Amino acid sequence: MQTELKPIIWKDETLFLLDQRHIPKEEVLVPIRTLDECHLAIKDMIVRGAPCIGFTAIFGLALWAKSTKSFDEKEFNQVAAYLKSARPTAVNLMYEVDRCMHLVKQKMAQGHSMMEVGEFLLQDAHEQIQNLTDKNTLMAQSALEDLKKRYGVRPYRFMTHCNTGILACGCIGTALGVVQYAHSKNLVEHVWVDETRPYLQGTRLTAFELTKMRAHYSIVVEGAASYILSHHKVDAIFVGADRIARNGDTANKVGTSTLAIVAKHYNVPFYVVAPLSSFDLSIASGKYIEIELRDEEEILSLKGHRLAPAGAKAVNPSFDVTDHDLITGIICERGLIESPNEENMRKVLGF
Amino acid sequence: MQTELKPIIWKDETLFLLDQRHIPKEEVLVPIRTLDECHLAIKDMIVRGAPCIGFTAIFGLALWAKSTKSFDEKEFNQVAAYLKSARPTAVNLMYEVDRCMHLVKQKMAQGHSMMEVGEFLLQDAHEQIQNLTDKNTLMAQSALEDLKKRYGVRPYRFMTHCNTGILACGCIGTALGVVQYAHSKNLVEHVWVDETRPYLQGTRLTAFELTKMRAHYSIVVEGAASYILSHHKVDAIFVGADRIARNGDTANKVGTSTLAIVAKHYNVPFYVVAPLSSFDLSIASGKYIEIELRDEEEILSLKGHRLAPAGAKAVNPSFDVTDHDLITGIICERGLIESPNEENMRKVLGF
Repeated sequence: MQTELKPIIWKDETLFLLDQRHIPKEEVLVPIRTLDECHLAIKDMIVRGAPCIGFTAIFGLALWAKSTKSFDEKEFNQVAAYLKSARPTAVNLMYEVDRCMHLVKQKMAQGHSMMEVGEFLLQDAHEQIQNLTDKNTLMAQSALEDLKKRYGVRPYRFMTHCNTGILACGCIGTALGVVQYAHSKNLVEHVWVDETRPYLQGTRLTAFELTKMRAHYSIVVEGAASYILSHHKVDAIFVGADRIARNGDTANKVGTSTLAIVAKHYNVPFYVVAPLSSFDLSIASGKYIEIELRDEEEILSLKGHRLAPAGAKAVNPSFDVTDHDLITGIICERGLIESPNEENMRKVLGF
Repeated sequence: MQTELKPIIWKDETLFLLDQRHIPKEEVLVPIRTLDECHLAIKDMIVRGAPCIGFTAIFGLALWAKSTKSFDEKEFNQVAAYLKSARPTAVNLMYEVDRCMHLVKQKMAQGHSMMEVGEFLLQDAHEQIQNLTDKNTLMAQSALEDLKKRYGVRPYRFMTHCNTGILACGCIGTALGVVQYAHSKNLVEHVWVDETRPYLQGTRLTAFELTKMRAHYSIVVEGAASYILSHHKVDAIFVGADRIARNGDTANKVGTSTLAIVAKHYNVPFYVVAPLSSFDLSIASGKYIEIELRDEEEILSLKGHRLAPAGAKAVNPSFDVTDHDLITGIICERGLIESPNEENMRKVLGF
């Protein structure tokens, strides 16, 4: 068992990925030495979480470059397409592969060898992880500043939804990053983790990270939100974001909006923590965000056990949109956007 | 497979119980011929739902009386205590056993034989089921009257939580009874069934009943409440009650209050359907209702599969309290109590 949680490790010319399919039951590090193994690791979800997938792809391209004698643009384009095809809906994967393609072609034009390009990609991967670490730490600091203003400096009682931690980011998380940063300063009293149906990211992943950190936490079912917020003092709720519209409306894992409505009812501050890359300022409001409907089997069965009667139907939206009116603040690298709406978003982001 | 769903059947001097532990996978009728078998059926949760457990106990006492030659008060008291001990927290079980004890002692004092007492208890059980059928039908009619006032007569779009149907009541249900009655009049367009974590009564039981009825329904995770109420037109939400305080505050399965808050946010009418036996007018408000915390394993594992990491903790409240301000109306045998509060409760109930 690792003492510090690291889902992506580069060591001895090999990429080691923590097999997230076995979390929380086992910690297995899978060695990745070839482009094919990298493709499979992404495809079979050994690695998950948008940033983690992106970083894995950069390492995969580095492995390819280091094992390739001479550059052939046609072959390179095929390699890139092959890597992208591992998770065709993962936007971060497309973005990172495209960015690297540009960099590789630039380096080749400058006369570098494939081995040098490989080293350059390795360095780039490490830099990207460091950049995200810096960004997420900055966001966590902004969040703690706001908690300090509200409550003074003391251990806080947090609530969170889904998994937005190290397992998703490869480094300190976004929303869970706030808890992780606070914990490093001894400022966590308790964390309420909702299980996050249907995929149980809260129970499986967030609980795993909090166990590793030795933070005090309790898992609750999502229906218990009203019970918890009325029976226990929760200082603030932190969630991540998949996409934030110009007016602050936020698409995130299904259940986020339900939790935000309950938080508003009980006057519990509700924060979204997300890097600028999650903002889509071309979208005026959440009503233009399309919600993907996922396979109903995720609800009707669990671990191969059928839960529902034969012939039962389910509707399984992967995300929901939280109205900006329900959000106390959005925290990004530029700091806190209080009471987000188009005007307040513009003040901080300057669009 | 039964075409009509009947969880409690008396036939050929035998009580047949639908084994609810196997629902929705299989429909197995378990024959119960002795007091011991009846005790075990309640204890092992072959039968569940407050009214069903109560009815089963009456049949159990009838089986005992019919197989007993002579009455011995000491033995009878032991029999009653034995039956009660099968589910020590089931209020209905206590109530029905106590009521039957009184009746049996009365009949014995009148000089009846044990066989006659047994027949009398059988008749009583059937009467109790008929009484509940009448009550629940009356409540369903009140609910449809109110929907008619709101929307006119047309197929309605319902949402419900947990299971409050035939599997719980042994006859037409309370909240789900409204759907069942409406379905018998061809007035159901769609039913949204939330899965009701952690015990999945929605997915397992309510979906099973709706499948049997051939009603159109979809299962959703509880976190999707906001998504469903904002993306789909839901005419009304119906839930049951475990205990209703004098001011209308309602304790019910955990998740009820969370759903009520989301319903209020989207202006979707939210009704509680419960017989007068669920009202506890000695309690001024919900804050005096103690919430039982159940075993955390119900959240941490499912069907023997551990979901959470080793050492994880969960908090598992079995109920929550829905504030009366969130309830559009409470429907009981006396009709609809609109905008429930102490004054409006008094007007209808006359306390």
